[in-house]
Parts: sequence; C-alpha cells; structure tokens
Amino acid sequence: MSDARVGVWFIGARGSVATTATTGCAAIAAGLHPPTGMVTQTEPFTATGLPPLGALVFGGHDTAECPLPKRAEELTAGGVLPYGLATAVATELATADREIRPGGPLPGDTRTPEQLVSAFAADMTDFRDRLGLARVVVINVASTEAETGAGAEVGAQARARAGAEPGERGEAEAGAGRGTAGPPAPGGAGLPPSSLYAAAALRAGCPYVNFTPSTGLRTPALTAAALAAGLPHAGRDGKTGQTLLRSVLAPMLLQRALTVRAWSGTNLLGGGDGAALADPGAAAAKNAGKERVLTDVLGHTPQGEVHIDDVPSLGDWKTAWDHIAFDGFLGTRMILQTIWQGCDSALAAPLVLDLARLTARAHEAGLSGPLNELAFYFKDPDGDGPAALADQYQALLGFAKRLGETR
Amino acid sequence: MSDARVGVWFIGARGSVATTATTGCAAIAAGLHPPTGMVTQTEPFTATGLPPLGALVFGGHDTAECPLPKRAEELTAGGVLPYGLATAVATELATADREIRPGGPLPGDTRTPEQLVSAFAADMTDFRDRLGLARVVVINVASTEAETGAGAEVGAQARARAGAEPGERGEAEAGAGRGTAGPPAPGGAGLPPSSLYAAAALRAGCPYVNFTPSTGLRTPALTAAALAAGLPHAGRDGKTGQTLLRSVLAPMLLQRALTVRAWSGTNLLGGGDGAALADPGAAAAKNAGKERVLTDVLGHTPQGEVHIDDVPSLGDWKTAWDHIAFDGFLGTRMILQTIWQGCDSALAAPLVLDLARLTARAHEAGLSGPLNELAFYFKDPDGDGPAALADQYQALLGFAKRLGETR
Amino acid sequence: MSDARVGVWFIGARGSVATTATTGCAAIAAGLHPPTGMVTQTEPFTATGLPPLGALVFGGHDTAECPLPKRAEELTAGGVLPYGLATAVATELATADREIRPGGPLPGDTRTPEQLVSAFAADMTDFRDRLGLARVVVINVASTEAETGAGAEVGAQARARAGAEPGERGEAEAGAGRGTAGPPAPGGAGLPPSSLYAAAALRAGCPYVNFTPSTGLRTPALTAAALAAGLPHAGRDGKTGQTLLRSVLAPMLLQRALTVRAWSGTNLLGGGDGAALADPGAAAAKNAGKERVLTDVLGHTPQGEVHIDDVPSLGDWKTAWDHIAFDGFLGTRMILQTIWQGCDSALAAPLVLDLARLTARAHEAGLSGPLNELAFYFKDPDGDGPAALADQYQALLGFAKRLGETR
Amino acid sequence: MSDARVGVWFIGARGSVATTATTGCAAIAAGLHPPTGMVTQTEPFTATGLPPLGALVFGGHDTAECPLPKRAEELTAGGVLPYGLATAVATELATADREIRPGGPLPGDTRTPEQLVSAFAADMTDFRDRLGLARVVVINVASTEAETGAGAEVGAQARARAGAEPGERGEAEAGAGRGTAGPPAPGGAGLPPSSLYAAAALRAGCPYVNFTPSTGLRTPALTAAALAAGLPHAGRDGKTGQTLLRSVLAPMLLQRALTVRAWSGTNLLGGGDGAALADPGAAAAKNAGKERVLTDVLGHTPQGEVHIDDVPSLGDWKTAWDHIAFDGFLGTRMILQTIWQGCDSALAAPLVLDLARLTARAHEAGLSGPLNELAFYFKDPDGDGPAALADQYQALLGFAKRLGETR
Repeated sequence: MSDARVGVWFIGARGSVATTATTGCAAIAAGLHPPTGMVTQTEPFTATGLPPLGALVFGGHDTAECPLPKRAEELTAGGVLPYGLATAVATELATADREIRPGGPLPGDTRTPEQLVSAFAADMTDFRDRLGLARVVVINVASTEAETGAGAEVGAQARARAGAEPGERGEAEAGAGRGTAGPPAPGGAGLPPSSLYAAAALRAGCPYVNFTPSTGLRTPALTAAALAAGLPHAGRDGKTGQTLLRSVLAPMLLQRALTVRAWSGTNLLGGGDGAALADPGAAAAKNAGKERVLTDVLGHTPQGEVHIDDVPSLGDWKTAWDHIAFDGFLGTRMILQTIWQGCDSALAAPLVLDLARLTARAHEAGLSGPLNELAFYFKDPDGDGPAALADQYQALLGFAKRLGETR
Repeated sequence: MSDARVGVWFIGARGSVATTATTGCAAIAAGLHPPTGMVTQTEPFTATGLPPLGALVFGGHDTAECPLPKRAEELTAGGVLPYGLATAVATELATADREIRPGGPLPGDTRTPEQLVSAFAADMTDFRDRLGLARVVVINVASTEAETGAGAEVGAQARARAGAEPGERGEAEAGAGRGTAGPPAPGGAGLPPSSLYAAAALRAGCPYVNFTPSTGLRTPALTAAALAAGLPHAGRDGKTGQTLLRSVLAPMLLQRALTVRAWSGTNLLGGGDGAALADPGAAAAKNAGKERVLTDVLGHTPQGEVHIDDVPSLGDWKTAWDHIAFDGFLGTRMILQTIWQGCDSALAAPLVLDLARLTARAHEAGLSGPLNELAFYFKDPDGDGPAALADQYQALLGFAKRLGETR
Repeated sequence: MSDARVGVWFIGARGSVATTATTGCAAIAAGLHPPTGMVTQTEPFTATGLPPLGALVFGGHDTAECPLPKRAEELTAGGVLPYGLATAVATELATADREIRPGGPLPGDTRTPEQLVSAFAADMTDFRDRLGLARVVVINVASTEAETGAGAEVGAQARARAGAEPGERGEAEAGAGRGTAGPPAPGGAGLPPSSLYAAAALRAGCPYVNFTPSTGLRTPALTAAALAAGLPHAGRDGKTGQTLLRSVLAPMLLQRALTVRAWSGTNLLGGGDGAALADPGAAAAKNAGKERVLTDVLGHTPQGEVHIDDVPSLGDWKTAWDHIAFDGFLGTRMILQTIWQGCDSALAAPLVLDLARLTARAHEAGLSGPLNELAFYFKDPDGDGPAALADQYQALLGFAKRLGETR
Repeated sequence: MSDARVGVWFIGARGSVATTATTGCAAIAAGLHPPTGMVTQTEPFTATGLPPLGALVFGGHDTAECPLPKRAEELTAGGVLPYGLATAVATELATADREIRPGGPLPGDTRTPEQLVSAFAADMTDFRDRLGLARVVVINVASTEAETGAGAEVGAQARARAGAEPGERGEAEAGAGRGTAGPPAPGGAGLPPSSLYAAAALRAGCPYVNFTPSTGLRTPALTAAALAAGLPHAGRDGKTGQTLLRSVLAPMLLQRALTVRAWSGTNLLGGGDGAALADPGAAAAKNAGKERVLTDVLGHTPQGEVHIDDVPSLGDWKTAWDHIAFDGFLGTRMILQTIWQGCDSALAAPLVLDLARLTARAHEAGLSGPLNELAFYFKDPDGDGPAALADQYQALLGFAKRLGETR
C-alpha cells in the first residue's frame, strides 16, 4: 500500500474500545510500546501491504460528549491504559476528538431513518474528502443493542432470515464501556441503529466491520444494498475471551475423541458492556455467538448454559469461568475448568486495529463482499468456514499472502 | 491389514494403564462401550488398515504379581472402570494374565544386563511364535524411572547427548498406578531398565513405543542397534493432561500476539505415578517434557515452575492447575487459569491402544525409525516436528492417509 | 435418652437424600463406616442424650415407587454410595421400604387438602403406634417446590408475610435427586404440598424439620396450628455447599474490614434437584437463602447474581463457583474465587441424621417452637440468630450442652 | 490515649509494605480514603484508646536508598497505590524519608553484632527523643531471611529450641517487595539480622512486632533480655492470604466432621518477597507457619505440599491456589479449591498499622511479654491460643475491651 492515509471511522468513537485503539495506535506508531496483541504486526504480515499504523487517521460517531483525552484519563485510572500514556499522545487524542460527530437518533430526534443514514454518510464522506484519505473503514464498536422481534431468534439459524424489525432499547450510558451509537429509529418500522450506520457506510462507499453482536449488515433489508455497493465487509462480534478459548479447547476435545457432555459458562463484566448485556435481548445475541463455536466444532450442542452478569465494580475487567464436563475412556467423567481474567478494551483494541488494516487493504485490492477469511477475529463469523481457531489462523495467513501477491 | 492377530506387549502389564487398556479393548470389541477417547476409531482412520481391536492380543512384563482380574476389581473400586465391566470381560483378563512374564531385575537378581535383555527378548519372541501373531508391539507403560547422572540433563537439549548411565531408583510399588518394570541393573555400568526392555524389543524384532518419560531407546547406547533393527518406534511420554492443554493454549496466545510472561503449574496425583514422580529425578524428566511444548511454541521459556506432588488420597485421579500470566495491548496484565481433573489411566489407555494399532500398521507397511508423525500423542516427541496440537493432528491425519494408500 | 426406638419419617423417602441417609445410618450403626460428616457423632455431643443411630427406624411418604434397594443400587452406580454397601445393608433397606406410604396428591387425586392432611397424619401415627416408637420426627427432603404468588417474594423480608397461596408446579420426576412429595393440592385455594405434610406432622404430634427451601411450616396459614401443637421444629433449606462456604468467608472478610463489592456465584447440578431448580420459582426460593447469609453478615447486599443450572450429566454431583470482588487497603481491587465440588446427597444425608437426632431429643426434653440453635444447619434459618458459621456452631454446642443437662 | 505522638519504626522502611503503610496512614488521616482493611478503625475499637492515625510518626532502618516518594511512585505504576495519592501526601512521605537510617550490616561492614545492636538502638532512641514521641513501636517488615542450621527446623516444634545461629543469605534487592534489613552479622557466631534489630528494640525500650517469618525475638539468645525488658511484643508472620483462608476453612471442615485427606497449595508471587522466598530456607520458614494452622485446627497434618514460586512478572500481586481433598459421608470424595488474588503490600499495610496502634496502647497500659491476643494477625502466633480465625477474633475483641477499661 502506498503511503496514503487511511481513515478509521468508529461507531462508538468515545467508548473504551475506540479510545484504547486510538491511544494505542498513536503509542505504538511513536515507538512508545511494542505492538502486543496486534496480529498484523507479526512477521507473516510484513509483505501484505497493510497501511502502517502511522497512516491511520481516526474519527467517528458517538452520542456521548466526553472528550477523548478525558476518556483516556478515565481509562488510565481504571488500569486499562498505562500511567502517563494518555499524556504522551495527548495531541493525537485531541486531533481524533475533533473528528467525532454526533450519533443518533437522540431522544426527541425527529429525523427519519433515511435522513439519519444520509447524515451519517455525509459525515463519513466529509471526513474522507476533507482530510484527503485514500479510504475510510467504518467499524462498529458501540454497545451491543438488543435483538428484538424476529431478530431475537439469534444465532446461526437466524442469520439467513434475520428480520428488519426495529430495535427498541433505550439509550446506553454515555461514556460507557463500549461507545454509544444512539437509540433505535423512532416509528417502529426502521432498522436498528447499527444497521443505519452500516447503511451509511455502504452509501459513503466505505468498507464496514461489525465488531459487536448487533445486527449491522446482517439483515435482509440491506442485502441488496451490500451487494450493489461492491465493498468488502467483515463481522461479527469480536472473539476476545471465553469464545477464543472455546475455539481451541473444543477442537482439542474433538481431536482426542473425548465426548463433551456439558459446557457451562459464566461471564462477569462491568463497564458499559456489562450493563448493555444485562438486557436479556442483548445477552441472547452474544450468547448465540458463544454457543455457535461449540455446535460448529463438536457437531452437537452440549448441555449447559452461558450467563452474562453485569458487575459494575469490575470496571473494564471481565472474568469468564467455563466448566466442561466430558467423558473419557469407558465413560469416565472428567472436568476441565478455565478462568479468563482480562481487560475487555485491551483485548478488543488490537483486533480492531488489525481489522481496520486488513479491510482497508482488501478494499484497495478490489475485494468485495464478506471477508470470510477474517473468521479468526469473530464469534459469529460471516460464511461457513472452519470454527477451530487453528484453521481460522491458517485461513488468515493465506488471506494475508494473497493480499501481498496482488500488490 | 489382514485379519492376522497382533500382539501388544506391555512393560508394566499389571499397572493401571495396561489393565485399563486391556479391559477397555475387550469391552469395546464386544460392543459394551463406545470407543470414547480412541482417535483411531474416528472416521479419518477407517481406511488406514489398522488392526481391529478384536485382533489385539495382550501380554507383557511386570515385577508385580497381582493378577489382572484383581487389578481390574481395584480399579473398579477406585472409580476408574465402570461397575460390572471387569466381570463382563473376566475371560479376556484371565487370558492376558497368563501371558505376563516376570520383569526384572528383581532384588538379588544376579543376571547381567545382557542376560536380562536376552531373557526379555525370548519372552517376546515366545509370545509371538506360540500364539502365531503377525507382529508384537512393545509398549512401555511402567512407572517413570529417575533420570540420573548426565541423563538428568533432561529435555530437548539433552536428547542429542543423553548418556547411558544406569538408573538408580529403588523398586516401585508393586501394583502401583503405572506398572512395575523392575529396578535398574546392578553394577552401575548398565542401562536403566526401560532401555533394557527397549533393547529386548529391538532384538526380538518388535516395534517399540515409549509412553513414559523414561529413557527407553533415547540413549546413544542403543542408537546403532535401533538403526540396524529397521523397526518403527515412537515416543516419548504420553500427552494426557496439562501438556495437552498447553499444546493448544500456547499456540492460541502466540497466534493472537499476546506475550506470555509466566506459566506456572502444579500437578497433584496419587497412585503409583504420584509416588514415582515424587522422586525429584523422575519429576525432572517429566517436567522437561512439559516445558518443552512452551519453549517450542512460544520461542522462549516463560517464567514459572511446574510442581508434581504425590497426593496418595487422590488415587488414580489427577488435578493440574495452570496459571498463565500474559500481557495484552499496551502491556495490560491478564491471567488465564485452567484446572484439569482427570483419571490418569482412563486418559492414557485409549492413546496406548491407538499407538499399538498405528505402530503395528507402520511395521506392516515396512516403515522404520522414529515415527515423527505420532507427535500428537507425546509430550517430548521424537523429531523436530510442530509442537502445536492442531499441526500435530494434521500430521497424524496425513500419516493415516499414507498408511492407507500403501495397502 | 432411653433405648427407646425413634422414627424418622421422610417426605421424599425414595429420593437420593433419604436413601443415602437410610443406607448410611445402617452402615455406621453396623460399624461398616466411620460417621464422617455427622456432627452429632463428635465428642461434644456424647453427653447430649441423643438417640443412638441403631435406634432410628425409617419410613416416609413418596409418590415414586422405585424400591429403596434399587435406588441404593442406582446411587452406587452414580458413585454416591461405596461399592458393596447397598448389598451389605439390604435387610435394613427392605425394612425401610416397607414403611413408605404413597404421597400425594397424585394426578387425578380428588381428595381435598383436609383429606390429604388427614391421610398423611394417619400414616405417621400408624408408623409410630404399630412399631411402638417413642416418637417420630418428620423431615422434608423432597424436591424443591416453586414459590408462587405472594410466596415468590422470597427471603428474609418475606418470611413474616409469606402467603398461603397454592403451589402450581407439576409433578417432579419419580426417583429424582430429591424425593417426590407430589404436586400441589387441586382447587387453587390450598397450601403447597410441603405445607400439607407439615400440617400432618403437627396433627400427628410429630416434630418437624424442613431441609428444603419449600414452604413447609413457614406460612401464616399454619402459624396458629404450630403454636397450638407445642412441638419443636426446625428449618429451612440445608446448608451443604456454597452457602456453607459463604457463612465462613463473609465473616472473614468482615472481620478483616475488607469491603465486598460483588459476590457472584454459579451452581451446576444434575439429579432431580437440578431439574427442580431449573424452575425459576424454585431457584428463587433457593437463591433467597443463599443471599441472606451475605446480607445478614455484611450488613449490605453486594453486587452479583447467583445462577442455578440444571446439568443432567453431572448426576448427583454439584459444582459451585463463587467469585468475590473485594476492596483492600486504599481501594485496591482483589479477588477470591472458590470451587466446591461435592456430592449433594452425601453432603445432605449426615446433616439430616443429625437433625433427626437433635430434634427427637428436643422433643423428649419438652422443647417446642422453632429450634433457633440449629441455624448451623440451614441456609435460611428460623429466628434472628447469628449468620456466621462459627457463632452458629457455638450456639449448637450450647444447645447440646443444655439438652444434656436436662436428662 | 492522650494526643501524644507515637513513633512507628519500620525495619525495612523503604520496602513496599512500609511505603504503603506510610502513604496510606497519611491518606486516611487526611480523609482521602476510607480505612478499608484496618480492623482497628471498626466500631468495636472506638473505646480502646488507640492512638489516632494522625498521631503516628514514621521512621526506620533500611539498607536501600531509594527515597520514599520515588518508591511510592513505583508502587503507583505497579497498581498498588491509587493514581495521584503519592503526590497528595508527598509532604508526609518526605518527612518519613528523613527519619530513615541506614540498616546493616552492609557488605564490608566490620562492626560486631554488639556494635550493630548499639547503633540501631541509638537510632531508635534518637527518633523518640528528638521528636518528643510518647513511645516508639518497632515493626519488622523486611524481606524474609533464611532460617539456617538448627533454625531451619522450623515450625511450632522448633519454637522452643530455635537456635541463635547466624543467617547466611545475601543482601536482598534494594527497593524490593519487602524492605531490606541487611545481611547477617559477619563472623558466623552472631544472630540473624532480624534478631539484632529485635535486640536493639529491647535495648531502646521499644515494643516490638515481627510481621515476617524471620527469627526476631524467637531465639533463646534473646529470651532473658526480652523478659528483663518488660516490653510488650507480638509475632510472627502476618496472616494475609492463603493462611487467612485456611484459618476459616479448616474450622468449617472440622465443625462439619468432614475428614480432610489432603491440603495442597501453590503460591505465586513476584516483588522482592518472591525472590526472598525462592530461597528454600526462607520458604521453609514461611511454610511452617502455613502448615501450622492446619495441624493446630485439624489435629493432624493432612497430605499435600505448599509451594512458593517466585514469578517476578506478577510484581506486587500474589496468587494462592489451594486444593483440599476431603471425605464426606460414607467416604465420598469431595474437593474444595480456592484462588486468592491479592496485592501483598495492600494486604499487609493495614494490619501493620493495626499492630502499631494496638502494641503502642498495650505499652501505654503497662502490658509486657507476648501479646497472645494478637494471634488474629499472625500465621505462627506467639502462645498456644486458638488457631481458628473466629476464636482469634473474639480474643482480639476481648483484648480491645480490656485495653479500653484500663484507660
């Protein structure tokens, strides 16, 4: 890729994930930190022609108003960002903050869905044109919205027929763990907000990545538009913790011919994401992705439930406990338990930067449609590719190689 | 493979692993239980030409004298074998018991190493000839022997130069968790018992599998003989629990570019294996295998220790706790913990049956030397193949396919 | 207490808890096993005058029909009872089985609540008179029934005003983890089954113990009758696992002046109890007890939820994971996690025997009303005594001493 | 107690514990933080006459030279102290730093033990006199020193006969997790450094608290001097994590008549304490305390080992995993596991402040000899009091009450 600058437009640009990604990109580009957690900075990606981190320019939508430098300070106090870093990249944060536009619809907003899409697309186009960017990748990192109506029939089964019913959830907390996209369109006949933003990305000619379990492009109402746009897109729901583990443990048990009886899990998380997922509808969307990996790998759905609990005092940290009951030789009962304690934003941010770079490069290379080779990054990936992480990694490496060969 | 019967000769034939394997093979062949845990009974191995379970005939060496049916009863009381199974296959157990010969050297035994090797080889040859077996695979499932002298410089580094010093540990408990191979040769100038048995296998023309961390064939003293024998062999140290987990978790962390700072582990196990591994030398041998997977996958050896504790009251059950401290984006500290609670013998037995079948088929197909493609089964595998389980599984599938094509 | 024989009448007499208690009592009385888990067999209780185990005679109600010896065999296969024990006490099991009467109301049963109470009381009286028992303690160990209507406002707050609405849940599985008491009375105006049995106990002049979270005596509809009966009673909901732990960990954190932010828990259990508690109403009743200990000890209710998942493949075994987020000095965030893996029936049975003996002795000594000193045994104890286990143990010791002094 | 100021003299005054205690005392006295973790700030201690936090004046010995404000900054970066706090109490830290005197003996130091004791005592006396303090409590919070020679026969049994052999370990890292007391006296015939400082405290007329497993006063060489001094003293080895848990869990299991078969534990800790305890001698001292609680409570020593691993990347954070195998009714095997993740300094500091206040008050009240009622705070407490935390807490409350009555 040439030295052209590339835009990254976050839906939820003031949220923890976006703030961490923006801060971290600046820090790594400046040599202040090694690129831990960024897969695209490892050796196999050196010849892929990805835009360098220093070429990324940030902006986005958010309904919250807390300035990015202040958000970065809050994340420092919460232990997400290392002490002193927000100060070191204060200029970059201020620059990004100036490129954040109001999301919507806000309460009392009387604009129609069409008007909203149009306004969002104009913001994206203006960002690209005014700053002379080669392209802009739109990435949804806003808080999860509840699935409603037919959309609540979540999971793999639902993907083919997911309806276009409106979302109904109220506005997320400003400045929450994930960014804030705004409530659904009024009127009851429109798309959920995540789909409005996705439609705007199509209209603006921007590649689109859905890092959340929200609907985004995955609705029949946008199928034709997505096809017509000829843009690459990727989703959905970033695989950052419990599901990441499941995507290597389930294949291990399968390859060893051990029979999984029950796979139970509990997630504790605070921040805005915990609050959003305390909504049963939102949790259902997320859980569908979590279960999909088991069903896809094991060929059956084991007993067991998945809980997502909002525990505000955990802040940006999350804990996932998994309890796997399996049978060994002659039916002997055995147990594997895992406890994953991670920082949500720090897990998500490097993957978001990876996806921005890979999708931008795919756009440059003229690819379009769902980028199935990015399943490595998602709980509920587009397409019917492999569910085991090792296979997804091989697919990713192949993708990187092919992108490199088209330069 | 034709319907010819194939011998399985266990070093440690009265131990828990051998007893479980013998019992389970009969039970599965009779249709009493599904083949849970047996990889070679899954679909990809159907055309490999492996000997059917019903064609396997069991015998072996042991210094203990407790009859197999009684050992099976003990394992039933300990929860390793399901209630009623030992009775159901009592005939098969009695038949196998009649083919067990005394191991050695026993205390007061004045035979030279050469005399011992000769006697062991005669037992193996007699088993094959008398029963008209197409071939006999010798499998070491005896309790771990301590590494001593230069041999104590364990691990990958030591493999090239492992000495031929004699073992020095005392006799293991008869009827212990693993079988009992006998104390080392007297005189201080010979090979450890595991190597005497391995030498006997070579002399008898039998393929050899070392499922333990003991020396076996991995000594310069046997290099020439192994080469001259032209037999296939495989080892060492079955990968049944903590290391199995590590072989999928370490690749996951590597692929996600997360930096592993420290990987600490504690193993609690009872049975005879716990007692044997309470010997620091034996534990050192085992730990070397456990650490090897981390170093091989991650490219560096993280901080942290591995403990193996003898906890007799756990019986045949073992618990492995792992604590992995890793850095995420911008150095954020995160933790993954795993707790694996399994039955040692039930984990090992199906793999032992797999190895018997695969090695027998390799022998039939005319292969010789270390079977590197069996790394899937071992903590400290022969050769320099991949350390990630997913890659090892692919190698195993390729091996099965090639074996099938040579029929 | 004299050598007079004492009856133990189980509501749910064919369930796992009752079967285990009946089997174990016989085994311990015969000297086949030490009395592990029985507090009343420890030194401080030697002079309390409790009825010896050999003096206990078992009977009860159940709607299931599987004979006790067969239930004991099933529990042996499930690892709850040691191999061979059911056979060793076959006579005692058969004897107890003959004293089990049909519970109710069964589907299609047209008896009124009054008729049911009368029939149950007649069974209890007949048992006492026919066998010449000094007294009969009635103990509810049936599956948890759902709280309904006003009764669903569970917990300490609800105790004073718990309504007398009828239960509404369907019949529990016959032979389930806990015994089966029968569905609620038809007609919609009566008491839940647990209260019908409790009323019968009052009418028959029997001390009553409620080892479950079901309503039992804790309803205004029975207040007057309980007072008039002048009998001792105790409850409710045996403290066997997660709550037991909480009753020592919460005081520890309090005494150390550490601030508990969130206390989250997940319980996985199979057997009939898991299925019963998958009913949200039943789970609510149980969770109220679990939370009560935290609120009572800490003086506030921390964040966090408690989940009870039905995982049938776990059988009689249960796993409880607790995650406690607390603040240390200067607000430093710390975490304590506990994992409790126990056998539900084996945890409950010795406590049930303890309660039978203590309540019988209290009856002999002329005590009446709620035995608040037995809070040591319950999640949601009668009265307003201490919630910390250490304090409850002191109260229990004092109770035992006083009972001894009245001999 | 009057408003007189009271000195707190830390051995290891620049270590993490002392720095955290000094910082926290200032912060709480100034109302910047609630006194979380300080038992003496809870209601039962209001009438005890303890010196207020604002009356405490800090000083001490250390062989390290890093100034306290810089140490506090390091602890902030490590997540031990909240962001901004070190700055808020910079004045208090600078004041305390001016009262820190060089510890010893330093390498090349040719002073005799007598000269060292004399110099240390002079420092303490000067501190008290120059600042006009009512009294000075000397508290050892330096890194654990290895037990050597007869002193290595640790544990309760060894307390009566612990020898006066010199320590032999090298100098701890300056600025380590615990403070640095200096290497042992040269010459091989003297006392370990911790005992030299303890002797100095006696000579200066200062009450003494040993918060570490080091020898301190617990050597026959100081018995006579301690008796003659007529000063109160307390020790040893602060109970901050794994042992705290054990002191409530072991009584719980005992009270429930459950039989503990094996109690295994692994501790992972970084900081200077991890490094010090990687020394087998030092670990032995610490483990003796950890095992003592089990033996004292349970009446037998269960199977199982305790490991202490140095994991530098954990910094000041420590993780303790415990695995408890116990028998329930009829011998059913059950498991309890606990995982404690805490910050070492934040756990220790409030207890150190508690002990300073309580010991100062005891001195004011004219008490002398070992303060057995402070067993609540120690792994290996002076005297033969109860080992269960609940009992120790009652003893502490009684002590506080008695102190209050002597005012």
